[in-house]
Amino acid sequence: MARILLVYSSLFGANAQLAALAEAALGAAGADVRVRRVREVALTGEEQAAAEGAQIATGADLTWAEGFVFCSPSHTGLLSASMKAFIDQHHDSAAAGAHLNKTFTAMATSGYAHAGQERVVDELNAVGAAWGCVIVAPGTADEGLNVHNGNPYGLSFVLEHGRLPGSAETTGVLRRHLHRLVAVTDALAPLRAADARTGTRTVPTIAGALT
Amino acid sequence: MARILLVYSSLFGANAQLAALAEAALGAAGADVRVRRVREVALTGEEQAAAEGAQIATGADLTWAEGFVFCSPSHTGLLSASMKAFIDQHHDSAAAGAHLNKTFTAMATSGYAHAGQERVVDELNAVGAAWGCVIVAPGTADEGLNVHNGNPYGLSFVLEHGRLPGSAETTGVLRRHLHRLVAVTDALAPLRAADARTGTRTVPTIAGALT
Amino acid sequence: MARILLVYSSLFGANAQLAALAEAALGAAGADVRVRRVREVALTGEEQAAAEGAQIATGADLTWAEGFVFCSPSHTGLLSASMKAFIDQHHDSAAAGAHLNKTFTAMATSGYAHAGQERVVDELNAVGAAWGCVIVAPGTADEGLNVHNGNPYGLSFVLEHGRLPGSAETTGVLRRHLHRLVAVTDALAPLRAADARTGTRTVPTIAGALT
Amino acid sequence: MARILLVYSSLFGANAQLAALAEAALGAAGADVRVRRVREVALTGEEQAAAEGAQIATGADLTWAEGFVFCSPSHTGLLSASMKAFIDQHHDSAAAGAHLNKTFTAMATSGYAHAGQERVVDELNAVGAAWGCVIVAPGTADEGLNVHNGNPYGLSFVLEHGRLPGSAETTGVLRRHLHRLVAVTDALAPLRAADARTGTRTVPTIAGALT
Repeated sequence: MARILLVYSSLFGANAQLAALAEAALGAAGADVRVRRVREVALTGEEQAAAEGAQIATGADLTWAEGFVFCSPSHTGLLSASMKAFIDQHHDSAAAGAHLNKTFTAMATSGYAHAGQERVVDELNAVGAAWGCVIVAPGTADEGLNVHNGNPYGLSFVLEHGRLPGSAETTGVLRRHLHRLVAVTDALAPLRAADARTGTRTVPTIAGALT
Repeated sequence: MARILLVYSSLFGANAQLAALAEAALGAAGADVRVRRVREVALTGEEQAAAEGAQIATGADLTWAEGFVFCSPSHTGLLSASMKAFIDQHHDSAAAGAHLNKTFTAMATSGYAHAGQERVVDELNAVGAAWGCVIVAPGTADEGLNVHNGNPYGLSFVLEHGRLPGSAETTGVLRRHLHRLVAVTDALAPLRAADARTGTRTVPTIAGALT
Repeated sequence: MARILLVYSSLFGANAQLAALAEAALGAAGADVRVRRVREVALTGEEQAAAEGAQIATGADLTWAEGFVFCSPSHTGLLSASMKAFIDQHHDSAAAGAHLNKTFTAMATSGYAHAGQERVVDELNAVGAAWGCVIVAPGTADEGLNVHNGNPYGLSFVLEHGRLPGSAETTGVLRRHLHRLVAVTDALAPLRAADARTGTRTVPTIAGALT
Repeated sequence: MARILLVYSSLFGANAQLAALAEAALGAAGADVRVRRVREVALTGEEQAAAEGAQIATGADLTWAEGFVFCSPSHTGLLSASMKAFIDQHHDSAAAGAHLNKTFTAMATSGYAHAGQERVVDELNAVGAAWGCVIVAPGTADEGLNVHNGNPYGLSFVLEHGRLPGSAETTGVLRRHLHRLVAVTDALAPLRAADARTGTRTVPTIAGALT
C-alpha cells in the first residue's frame, strides 16, 4: 500500500480543489494518502482565512512518503514562490538521499492555456530528479489520458473563472494517471528496501535531521 | 544613459559579490545603475546580519529601470524562493505592460558545474519574456565571452568555496556582456518612448499602482 | 526597412499556412520579407509534392537577414528534425558572430493544446540566444496578444484538423507581435552597424564561408 | 535480466566512445545490452568512414528493449538533428503505447561546460516522458555521483579535445548510475507484464507496425 504525499500551493483555492480531487483518485488506487499544503509566503485576508485548517507539509511528511504529487499554480510562468520556499527548506535531507527511488509526479494550473503549464511541471520534475526520485509523467502513450489536453510532462489544468473544471474528464485523467503512479511506487518498494539495507539511502540520519 | 536595475538574491554572499562586480561593469559601460537585493524569505542569524544595509528592491525601482539584470543562486536547480517571491509580488504591474521593450539579462551561481546553471537563467529569462522585455543573452557568438564557460543563455559562475572566482576573467566577461546590454537598452529608447506616447505602455497607471 | 527572414518546417502544411499569414503581417509592418522552407529530412509522396515550389533556406538568406522568425511544428514535444538539421548545418557561421544583435522570435504549432508548444518555442529561442540574437517574445504584457492563448515565449497555435484556425484572431496576434519584432529590429540597426565597423561582427568572412 | 537499448548519435566519435563505456557498465550491472547508432543526417568523408560497422537502431530494437539510454552531443545547445530524426521516425509506435513503463535515462556531451548539457538531457527526458517511460535521472542524492559534475537530469560530460576523459571517475559514475537504471528496469517488469495482459500496452500491433 504505497504511501503517497500530495503537496500543494494554493493562493486562490484552485489547487486546494485539485488536491481534493487527487486525494480521492489516490485513495481509489489503493494508496495511503496525506494531503498537505505548503506555508504560503504571502497571503492576505480572505486567502489566509481559506487556508485555515489545512495541514502544513513538514519534513516528517516527506520522510514518511514513498511517492510524491506536487501541485503548483503557474505564477509568471513558474512555480509559486511558496512551493519553492518549501523545496528550498527541505533541500538538505533530499540531497542526503532521503528520497532516492521514491516516485514523483507534477501538476499545474493556470488561467491561460499556455501560461507556463509545461514549464511549471518541468520545474517540479527537475526537483524530483534532483532528489533522486523516479519521474512518472503522463506521457502521450495512454489513450485514456490523451482525451485530456495532452501535456506529456505532468497533468495540467486550465482554470475557468479561477476554478478547475470539475468534470468527469478531470476526474478520469486524475484516476488514470495516479493509478499508474501508485503502481510504479509499489513496484519500486523492494528497491527502496534494498537501498535502506545497503545504506545507499541513509534513512535514519535523515529522519533524525528532519524532526 | 541607460537606467539599469540589478536585482539579486543572496543567501551566503556570493551573489552580493557578483552584484558588486556587475555594478562596476555597468558603470564602466556608462549606465545609471541601481543595485537592489530582494527580501530573503528565510534568513537566520549571521546571514541576516550580512544582509543588513543592502537596499531592498521595490516596485519603484522596477518602474525606474529601462533594463534589468537578475541574479540568483541555484537552489535545488531552480531560482531561489526569495527571487521568486519578488517576481510574484510584482506580477500585476508587469502584466499591465510596465516593462514592455525594456531589456533583460540573467545570471546564476552554483556550487557544482551543472547544478541548474542553465535552468536558473532559463527560468529568469522566461520571466523577462513574460514581462515583455527583450532578452539579451550572452550567446556563443562573441569570442570575448567564449573564453568563459560557454553558457549561452545567461552568465553563470561556478563558485569556489562559496565565492566567485574574483579573477580578471570574471571581470572581463561581465564587462563585455553588460556593455552589450547597455548598448541594446540605449538603442531601444526611442521605441519605449513611442510606446509611452501611443499608450501601449501605460506608464502613469502602473507607476501609480506601484507606490 | 528591416530585412526579416521567416524559416519554417512543415510536414503536413500547417506551418506553410502559418508562414503565409506571417509573411502578410510582416509586410504590413513594413518589413522586407523572405519566406524560406527548410529541407525536410523525411518527406514522402504527397508531402513531397506539396513542398515543391517552396524556396529552400540558405546560408545567404541567414546572412541577408536582420531579424528571424522560426516556425516549427511540435514533433514528440520538440522542434522538428528538419528544423534542427537546418540549425546544425549553419552552426559555424552563427558561432562566428554572423547574427549578433539581430532579432529572433519563435512560433510553434501542435495538434494538442500542450504537446510541446512552450517547449518548442523555448528550444528555438535557445538557438537564437546561442547565435547572439536579441529575443523578442510575445510576453503577457500586451493586451492585444493576451486575447490569444497566452504562450509568453513565442506565438503558438493549436491546430484544428491539421490546419491553423484562419481566424481574425490569428491574423491579429501575428500582426501585433510581428509589428513589434520589426520595430525592435529597426531600432537595433545602428548597433549592428557599429558592430560591423568595430569588427565584433565579422560579416565579410562569414558571408564568404557561407557561399 | 533487463534488456537495455543504448541509442547514440555521434558526429566526431565522442558519443561512440561514451556508448562503449556505457555498454561495459550496463553489462557489469547484469543487463542484456544492445548498442545502436542513429543514422546520421549529415556525415561526410572521414566521419562516414568512422561510422561504418556501427549497427543502426531500428524499431525492432525499440520494441525489444525494456529500458533506454539515449546519448546525444549538444549541437547549438540542443540534441543532434540525427537523434531527433530517429525520434520523429518512431513517433507513431511510441504514441501507441509501445514503451509504457519502460525506463529512460539521458546523456550528453559538449565541448564547453555549459553549452546545453542541461538542456540536451532535458530534451531527451521530455521524449522519454512523452513515450510513457519512467525517467531515471542521476539526481544529487547519491554521493557516488556527486563526485562528478553535478548535472541532476542526466549524466553529461565535458569533452577534452573532442574526447571523453577516459578516467576512473567517468567509468565510476557510469557504473553507479546505470546499475540503478537496471535495478529500476527490473523492478518494473511485473508492471509491464500486467500492462501487456490488460492491453494497456498493445505490443503485438506495435511490433507489427514497426517491421
